[in-house]
Amino acid sequence: MKQIIVLLFALHTFTAFAQGKVQWHDVTQWGVEGRGWGDQERAKWFDRFPAKAEKTVTKSVWSLSRHSAGMMVRFKSDANTIYAKWKVTSSRLGMPHMPPSGVSGLDLYARDSRGKWRWAAATRPSKQKMEVILLRGIKPGLREYALYLPLYNGTESLAVGVPADAKFERLAPRKSKPLVFYGTSITHGACASRPGIAHPAILGRWFDIPVINIGFSGNGKMHKEVGGLMIEVDAAAYIIDCLPNMNGAMVTERCVPLVQQLRKARPNTPIVLVEDRRFPNSWLVPEKSKFHDDNHAALRKAFKELQTAGVKHLYYVEGDPLLGDDFEGTTDASHPNDLGFLRQAEVFAPVLKRALKLE
Amino acid sequence: MKQIIVLLFALHTFTAFAQGKVQWHDVTQWGVEGRGWGDQERAKWFDRFPAKAEKTVTKSVWSLSRHSAGMMVRFKSDANTIYAKWKVTSSRLGMPHMPPSGVSGLDLYARDSRGKWRWAAATRPSKQKMEVILLRGIKPGLREYALYLPLYNGTESLAVGVPADAKFERLAPRKSKPLVFYGTSITHGACASRPGIAHPAILGRWFDIPVINIGFSGNGKMHKEVGGLMIEVDAAAYIIDCLPNMNGAMVTERCVPLVQQLRKARPNTPIVLVEDRRFPNSWLVPEKSKFHDDNHAALRKAFKELQTAGVKHLYYVEGDPLLGDDFEGTTDASHPNDLGFLRQAEVFAPVLKRALKLE
Repeated sequence: MKQIIVLLFALHTFTAFAQGKVQWHDVTQWGVEGRGWGDQERAKWFDRFPAKAEKTVTKSVWSLSRHSAGMMVRFKSDANTIYAKWKVTSSRLGMPHMPPSGVSGLDLYARDSRGKWRWAAATRPSKQKMEVILLRGIKPGLREYALYLPLYNGTESLAVGVPADAKFERLAPRKSKPLVFYGTSITHGACASRPGIAHPAILGRWFDIPVINIGFSGNGKMHKEVGGLMIEVDAAAYIIDCLPNMNGAMVTERCVPLVQQLRKARPNTPIVLVEDRRFPNSWLVPEKSKFHDDNHAALRKAFKELQTAGVKHLYYVEGDPLLGDDFEGTTDASHPNDLGFLRQAEVFAPVLKRALKLE
Repeated sequence: MKQIIVLLFALHTFTAFAQGKVQWHDVTQWGVEGRGWGDQERAKWFDRFPAKAEKTVTKSVWSLSRHSAGMMVRFKSDANTIYAKWKVTSSRLGMPHMPPSGVSGLDLYARDSRGKWRWAAATRPSKQKMEVILLRGIKPGLREYALYLPLYNGTESLAVGVPADAKFERLAPRKSKPLVFYGTSITHGACASRPGIAHPAILGRWFDIPVINIGFSGNGKMHKEVGGLMIEVDAAAYIIDCLPNMNGAMVTERCVPLVQQLRKARPNTPIVLVEDRRFPNSWLVPEKSKFHDDNHAALRKAFKELQTAGVKHLYYVEGDPLLGDDFEGTTDASHPNDLGFLRQAEVFAPVLKRALKLE
């Protein structure tokens, strides 16, 4: 029976694809959100940074900026089946602590009848070039979809498909100001099981505004060169979440200058400083606990110094509550699991609400 | 700098291992929890079922029973560093939707000063045979640890190491009655990012009692042959959580006989029937929603029939709340992510509390 179902499924897929019954839409034709500096020259279409960044940022940051973390494309359709084909740049589809579904996969959400985003479908990448049915048997109705791109791989190409007779409307990236998240591997999305559950993506849905993710695994270090790129983006808020890749001395050296750099260029844009989460096993490892203490103290001091200097529109997120209080919020001590990501979003949300003047 | 740290780390590891400064303890010498039927002949030490099961259960169930899902070994130590070396039976270390850390990795918890289990360390398997430092820089003190074994791979061997001068006490599997979870891929542990966050493991820690995990990916179907093995275990409770692999007709056919089989052999052991969770995208896919409706109705009917027939100590867990209400609790619609697993544990807990007469 199982074999028959698999066969029928395969036949169905084959037929739909082979007979040209699918209308394919290359997303580069109408644009994705989370692709900042969109009017500038780019080395590759799905890079997060414009080509010029290669000359200023570190080699590591440049290399990591070629992952499509945080990108998301919207469309409307009444299709009963949604297809996708995409190719990623690296054959490393997954990592020992993060599955291919998050590293190299897509993640689909749909707006419900009340206008809220709800999860719809994810993928299971097994090769660099994939062609899949994202979802079948969808109930009738024209609705809006958001498709998130791979977090820890580059995207070479991406097309969305629907049956030939279905409506398909390309939705251009929204013009509203984005949240810009500058951070580490955590912002980058490790270890989300799928792209839509990294906290920048969750917050983008909750506030229903665009997000630019500039998280760089191991390399979110408050670089002024990254600051130089950030000020080119007229953001709803800048979120600076680099402490997991820094230490107290680096924070003391770089935090105030980075905030001053952003503030000088963007006098009214909210800036949110985020402490590092505490490793859930730091109760067992005093050295690790001291690392967090030092980082937190250094950021708090920088924050006060900036306030004293009269810098306005500054906000602060404390690190200790970020992952909850049951020690279960990570995959590997450092990186949130999906549980930790949701909790981070819950801690960020009230601060962003104030920063965005939504309360 | 990074290279130097890596080098120092490698040297440290090499020195500790090479100079024989680590005392290794083969866990088969004192036993693991979650290895039921422990006094019977076994095809392989870390199999979940005794050898005789191969003659009765389906080929698929037998094959999947060779994964070490749910096994956990306890020890006490005052070591400042804990090592592990283990080998898994299959070279498939991860799956497209589940990382090697969950499929083939270990997961360490420790008891805090109040006697509560807290998470301590996980692993990042990159090959079949691994030798790692689980945790370093541990604060002084003799404490109890629990190390969970791989969920979706067989364990060929496992040894725990501590420095030669550290205390190490092997803690035999507890004699108290275990919770026996009979289920599908979800019980088996997909898609937990590490072994300790599958819901049977969480519940084992919360209730602080042993757990036997007999979840079989795609093959948890209320088989009477599995029931025949279950009755040999004097359980604290039998949890039957097979609906995701069944349909209404199968539930109607098999549920009452399985419960009667267990009840006949074990007149007073609580039996918990669990509905299937609802796919978080079933709001979009009417056919899927109907599948859940049919399953739930069939299980509810079987439950009432059993109650009417005077079967005592029966408990029921509803499926709709299992993954929460925000549609984010899975990796791929079917399988909980770590968020979904915690939520499942939260829904199971009050029912198990009643079943175990703890309230």
